[in-house]
Amino acid sequence: MFEDRKEQWLKTARSLKPALYEEVGRPSSGLSLHALREGDSVVLDFGDHYVGHLALKLTNEGSHPDAPAWLALKFCENRRELSETLEGYNGWISKSWVQQEQIHIDVLPAEVCLPRRYAFRFVRIDVLGLSSKYRLVIEDAVARTTTSANDACVRKYVGCAEDEALDRVALRTLRSCMQDFFEDGPKRDRRLWMGDLRLQALTNAVTYRNFDLVKRCLYLFAAVADVEGCIPACLFTEPEVEADDTYMFDYSLFFIPTLRDYVKASGDVRTREDLLPLALKQLELSETQFDPDTQLVKDCDRLGWCFVDWELALNKQLCAHAIWIYCAQAACDMAPDPVLSRKIAVRKQAAIRYLFDKERHLFVSGAMRQVSWASQVWAVLAGIVEGTDAAACLDSVVECPDAVGMVTPYMMHHYAEALCKTGRKKQALSVIRDYWGKMVQNGADTFWELFNPLDPDESPYGSAVVNNYCHAWSCTPAWFLRSGILEDNV
Amino acid sequence: MFEDRKEQWLKTARSLKPALYEEVGRPSSGLSLHALREGDSVVLDFGDHYVGHLALKLTNEGSHPDAPAWLALKFCENRRELSETLEGYNGWISKSWVQQEQIHIDVLPAEVCLPRRYAFRFVRIDVLGLSSKYRLVIEDAVARTTTSANDACVRKYVGCAEDEALDRVALRTLRSCMQDFFEDGPKRDRRLWMGDLRLQALTNAVTYRNFDLVKRCLYLFAAVADVEGCIPACLFTEPEVEADDTYMFDYSLFFIPTLRDYVKASGDVRTREDLLPLALKQLELSETQFDPDTQLVKDCDRLGWCFVDWELALNKQLCAHAIWIYCAQAACDMAPDPVLSRKIAVRKQAAIRYLFDKERHLFVSGAMRQVSWASQVWAVLAGIVEGTDAAACLDSVVECPDAVGMVTPYMMHHYAEALCKTGRKKQALSVIRDYWGKMVQNGADTFWELFNPLDPDESPYGSAVVNNYCHAWSCTPAWFLRSGILEDNV
Repeated sequence: MFEDRKEQWLKTARSLKPALYEEVGRPSSGLSLHALREGDSVVLDFGDHYVGHLALKLTNEGSHPDAPAWLALKFCENRRELSETLEGYNGWISKSWVQQEQIHIDVLPAEVCLPRRYAFRFVRIDVLGLSSKYRLVIEDAVARTTTSANDACVRKYVGCAEDEALDRVALRTLRSCMQDFFEDGPKRDRRLWMGDLRLQALTNAVTYRNFDLVKRCLYLFAAVADVEGCIPACLFTEPEVEADDTYMFDYSLFFIPTLRDYVKASGDVRTREDLLPLALKQLELSETQFDPDTQLVKDCDRLGWCFVDWELALNKQLCAHAIWIYCAQAACDMAPDPVLSRKIAVRKQAAIRYLFDKERHLFVSGAMRQVSWASQVWAVLAGIVEGTDAAACLDSVVECPDAVGMVTPYMMHHYAEALCKTGRKKQALSVIRDYWGKMVQNGADTFWELFNPLDPDESPYGSAVVNNYCHAWSCTPAWFLRSGILEDNV
Repeated sequence: MFEDRKEQWLKTARSLKPALYEEVGRPSSGLSLHALREGDSVVLDFGDHYVGHLALKLTNEGSHPDAPAWLALKFCENRRELSETLEGYNGWISKSWVQQEQIHIDVLPAEVCLPRRYAFRFVRIDVLGLSSKYRLVIEDAVARTTTSANDACVRKYVGCAEDEALDRVALRTLRSCMQDFFEDGPKRDRRLWMGDLRLQALTNAVTYRNFDLVKRCLYLFAAVADVEGCIPACLFTEPEVEADDTYMFDYSLFFIPTLRDYVKASGDVRTREDLLPLALKQLELSETQFDPDTQLVKDCDRLGWCFVDWELALNKQLCAHAIWIYCAQAACDMAPDPVLSRKIAVRKQAAIRYLFDKERHLFVSGAMRQVSWASQVWAVLAGIVEGTDAAACLDSVVECPDAVGMVTPYMMHHYAEALCKTGRKKQALSVIRDYWGKMVQNGADTFWELFNPLDPDESPYGSAVVNNYCHAWSCTPAWFLRSGILEDNV
């Protein structure tokens, strides 16, 4: 399926590889005024979040160095990472993601250019070994950073100081993730994930407007669809473009609204014509997940079959069902289809019939009829309920203390969007100011992958040491503030 | 002093920078037949001692790598280093010398060329971090090694298997130390030390015969003599040629016999004419160390004022006195001088008068009249005693259990040479076979910096972890076996 098209799709993707804008950053503090001895450490603060390479200009005081300088370097997006160690870390995300190096410098003075790319504001340098005959001086430190985001494209956002801060941090988040493609996080995984791409593309459309980068990512996904045409949840670009062997119900389907939104924002109808059959294929492939009798998405035990949020307790059945409707609607937006429209209507009714608790006015999910915030949010976004019925779902879940909550900015985005859809625009703004605003209050230069205001240490990975503090799916405050969705007349 | 000559001397030294012979080595064992997981480790055995760079060809099994590979590499000259760690190390030699790295590989498959040079036979690789989705395969490992020693210049040594092994290991030692200049040790300090150079040059003259390299080193030392003309104990060549701020009585003087031996072996009388004034200057500068009344070298409390051996308990007065005589004689060999010859005779007599215990037939040293092996050895080498008197000193010290012993192959060389000088050639050969031979029995591919047959862990540096297992001053078995000094008619 589409095998004859993929080579051309890959060529298109490659032809859109962006030139990167380069910038040089220098630490606002930390360059050692005093020379360092073995055991000393210093923290360079570059003053903002950067993605790129570090070069150090090193020299010595005292006798001619008679032994190498042995340094540990740790690159931190967030101040809290400076003191974290891997000791005892046993999480399932590889500890190889922690941005730390050990280097030896044989000859001083030296200009040391570290070969890898890092995402960082802070660099902690520990002098692990040095001869007592000399001391080390860090004369200069230069961050050579890259992005495919063009700052000149972005109009200044004007609002209250609080909102301006949200916008600034959101832009920095998106900017740091915009490299050769839309990365999920420049620290980790440095990969193209569909869930992140969809929200990045939305925000990009009202900020950097690098539509070629969105197009490139759509074509990258198209090029790695499997033999049946199924689009993977994420893909690698190095050493060759290749699909990850991870497929998720929601992420495959999100190709459809991502394509729709791209075409709407860019006007590039040729890409819609080129990729629409592949988009529709995702709907066709998703049919196996439906119960033909109930017309409901079948629940599934397999961990990660559908993402929705990093809340492991969340039952995904209702969300998956609603996301299918949301994506099928996006397909109709691009190519009106009465058959598909009827199917959407039937499946909306199926959700109401089987997975709506009329007494509590709440959607439920799975055999255990779990109540969660996510289920209400996606039922609203899919239009399974509308108007006051929709608003009532979002109200009811607040009154339900046992409801499974939300843990990521990704899910919080959908909650705020659902509030907007029900006309609760002030409440949406409050959510954004409270949730993302608290990260700003916590010193965020970029928005974090995970944030529980009640437990900032929370991590689905076993330890916060591998968390990202710059993550694509968290960049949407700029979309909320700039798209007009928070305005009453939208 | 000589300031107007130094620029030209440095030019001469630079013009003699050798082209390096390159060789490729591959591990005889250790390339992983099975793929590695996090926590696994592997030891590559390259089968012989190499100095150079390592390139690894890495690939993966399983899913596309979704996280970097984080590896620790340890380069070991000797098998025992494989299990040593720096934990608890508190010695005064910098731990930055331990040949260990940590690297991250972001993209697989990869060819990883480590940028630094190492001295090694073994490479231990520990997988510190890896994703559970893939396994690491070391497909190939290549040591790209260099030396300025030309194997084609060396005739095969033919002798008993034991002596052939001594010769082979000695050659490998010298070869590994022959790089841009004669290094003391390719692991550490990678520097030009006068004490090492003298013995390397002797051995080079009967093996690789790279006389330009000796000449280059003589000129390097000449170029960095201080404003008074004093030659430092060692020098650096990177980033610029520069003297170390270490001056030692014996090492400055050894410039003289090193020049004499070079001219004798190479026939390069022009270099003798050029550098003789500087050589004689060392004698002149050493005069301040003499007591004008006794004509004895004054004892000194400053640690390291005169090297002789790594035995910290050794009083150096007698040795320093004898080394002065030895070096002054070398000056007379190059430029007969009746005044200097008379001074030598006077100072020989002074040693006999003040520092010879006639009853015990032993030279003593310092105010405490310390008896040591080193004092007897240097008294013999200097010709303070000769013939049966000399032999008797070397016999007497054997009977003296409190005598301060010898700890380095450097000192053992002088002991064996002294035995030869007294005609004890069979005994000298026994010493060489016993002492250096025991290193071979302990698996040495190259001879070690330090070796106490009774305590192989001994180190003057606080821990064996920073010891060298390839050290220039230990290469002289090849000189003994090839120079003819062990033959009865010499």
